[in-house]
Amino acid sequence: MIVAITYELIKVCKQSGARLGRVHTPHGVIETPCFMPVGTQATVKTMSPEELKTMDARIILSNTYHLFLRPGHELIARAGGLHKFMNWDRAILTDSGGFQVFSLSEMRKITEEGVQFRSHLNGDKLFLSPEKAMEIQNALGSDIMMAFDECPPFPAEYGYVKRSIERTSRWAERCLQAHARPEDQGLFAIVQGGEYEDLRKQSATDLTSMDFPGYAIGGLSVGEPKPIMYRVLDYTVPLLPSGKPRYLMGVGSPDALIEGAIRGIDMFDCVLPTRIARNGTTMTSKGRVVVRNAANAEDFGPLDPACNCYTCQNYSRAYIRHLLKADETFGIRLTTYHNLHFLLQLMRDVRQAIMEDRLLDFRDEFFAQYGLNDNDKGF
Amino acid sequence: MIVAITYELIKVCKQSGARLGRVHTPHGVIETPCFMPVGTQATVKTMSPEELKTMDARIILSNTYHLFLRPGHELIARAGGLHKFMNWDRAILTDSGGFQVFSLSEMRKITEEGVQFRSHLNGDKLFLSPEKAMEIQNALGSDIMMAFDECPPFPAEYGYVKRSIERTSRWAERCLQAHARPEDQGLFAIVQGGEYEDLRKQSATDLTSMDFPGYAIGGLSVGEPKPIMYRVLDYTVPLLPSGKPRYLMGVGSPDALIEGAIRGIDMFDCVLPTRIARNGTTMTSKGRVVVRNAANAEDFGPLDPACNCYTCQNYSRAYIRHLLKADETFGIRLTTYHNLHFLLQLMRDVRQAIMEDRLLDFRDEFFAQYGLNDNDKGF
Repeated sequence: MIVAITYELIKVCKQSGARLGRVHTPHGVIETPCFMPVGTQATVKTMSPEELKTMDARIILSNTYHLFLRPGHELIARAGGLHKFMNWDRAILTDSGGFQVFSLSEMRKITEEGVQFRSHLNGDKLFLSPEKAMEIQNALGSDIMMAFDECPPFPAEYGYVKRSIERTSRWAERCLQAHARPEDQGLFAIVQGGEYEDLRKQSATDLTSMDFPGYAIGGLSVGEPKPIMYRVLDYTVPLLPSGKPRYLMGVGSPDALIEGAIRGIDMFDCVLPTRIARNGTTMTSKGRVVVRNAANAEDFGPLDPACNCYTCQNYSRAYIRHLLKADETFGIRLTTYHNLHFLLQLMRDVRQAIMEDRLLDFRDEFFAQYGLNDNDKGF
Repeated sequence: MIVAITYELIKVCKQSGARLGRVHTPHGVIETPCFMPVGTQATVKTMSPEELKTMDARIILSNTYHLFLRPGHELIARAGGLHKFMNWDRAILTDSGGFQVFSLSEMRKITEEGVQFRSHLNGDKLFLSPEKAMEIQNALGSDIMMAFDECPPFPAEYGYVKRSIERTSRWAERCLQAHARPEDQGLFAIVQGGEYEDLRKQSATDLTSMDFPGYAIGGLSVGEPKPIMYRVLDYTVPLLPSGKPRYLMGVGSPDALIEGAIRGIDMFDCVLPTRIARNGTTMTSKGRVVVRNAANAEDFGPLDPACNCYTCQNYSRAYIRHLLKADETFGIRLTTYHNLHFLLQLMRDVRQAIMEDRLLDFRDEFFAQYGLNDNDKGF
């Protein structure tokens, strides 16, 4: 059988154990570890596909829940699929809708069959199940699909999480059965289990027995302290097969990207860079810069003198601040471009450091320059 | 003396009398007749400078009133001038602030010295005069500056308009005196006079006696029926010197651009293409298309099959409609790009028709295709 998604291990960092690799998809090769910009509604907010290519984004994430609600997966299928609809010919990963059903929608009712909920847009009564999530993602035509999972909140009680991962495993099996296009689209399973080591192990054991082409770790970066997240990674990643990509969902702060890579993660996604950009906050080599601050009013230098992105090569903090204060969307384009470029460049640097067997040194250098210490590793 | 702005007449259309020419500026040559996109707050809303260049915009307009209020002309001067501040190395025209003082601000008090008013942003008490308008525009460093004028509303009583144009002429003289950089920046005067032929003549006679490098016609497209505007052009344009550019302020509907060119106008500006784009309305070769309409929900064709712009080459009506309905600013980027490209392409077509001595035929063909007839020539 032709497999849509394959992982190629290039080397392991002798200093950290991080992996340098490639994920091969029907829409191109992704160098890993990688960060995936989020295009929730079939667009990475404010960015054109060409701009994403200029910063060498190889894969973006789009949201099944949002596209199911609007404009509808059937419409996108009639448009020729999500790639064509949004003019993006590189890889796309779609989530399963599970996380949004649990975080955005109203009036959820969970049964073994699936989840009944009301649309956060118009209150329509809707239903998602493993089979429906596959139908939607098959219609969208993403390169990587995610299995439909139940996402327990953090913290959640042990018994609840145990019942939840067992259901998630049964749903994963149903997703495999329902997936109509395995030769075109790779389906990843999601390991859950909260902060309970034995439940993470149970979930990983169940799911890896089913032979998915990739595995995600879900239920992290949902409010828990970062040391807990790192500890979960420490004992969960080794449970995943080394020949397949490992995806840490919802993580995008610079420190957590590095720490995740050190722990063997290959793929990350997060709305952080685009969301904070819209508030006028940027990531730079010296740490956070809130462009709106009065200190930048007459700063005619770039956001980050160390950055070679379009924004930093052409525009001053004073100009960007003016645009943001005047509610000009071009200002948000410039901060969004910069933040995404910053994380994609960070991942290039991480890959280079793995190549040179010095990712732990790189981490320490980056943290020192970024102004992070052991007590302050949140972005 | 070196003159910053010169006009080169290439030819006159034998069929219509329209002029094909070039305006030479310190930041490049502008083929005329031309349309100038409006970048009110030092940015053409949603567009990058590179995008404006891709559609071959040679000159943009920016607003003295807005930049005076925010971020302030002194800050822009310290940034190295408006071109550098906004990363635009082609020509810029700045208006005088007169129109905005009369249309946007509050608590106006007009004296011979100037106009006292309150900022529409924060209520600050401010003062603009001919000297101040020159100081601001000299600080901005625009290629073409506009003389500070009084803008009577439409309709206005004869005696009021007469007193107003006489003041505008005295203010124009003061602008000439106050202009500190005539070798770097060209100063255009604005002919006013409402719909009173003798007052237009008096205003034009006064101002042309002062030898400005270009002349604008102001006080039109302010609510009067288009036939009145065309009649004013019919008797005003011939009063202007043929060796200098003629600029019709605030006009940007496709029909009025063509009718203005036929009457000898060389330059136009208007917020229309960018403003309607933000409401999801587009100009196409077949007339207006309101992209938000349900009829476009499953239309996978382009906004305009006859258009070769970035938007039409890459995106469907269905996708753009989805973006607009989902409040994604990329949708407004796409409609803005298209509308500006549409008007810039229209002006290229107008110039070609002048070259071929067939602008009247072109007008009739355009109007027929655009769905305009004699009773419906408003956009």
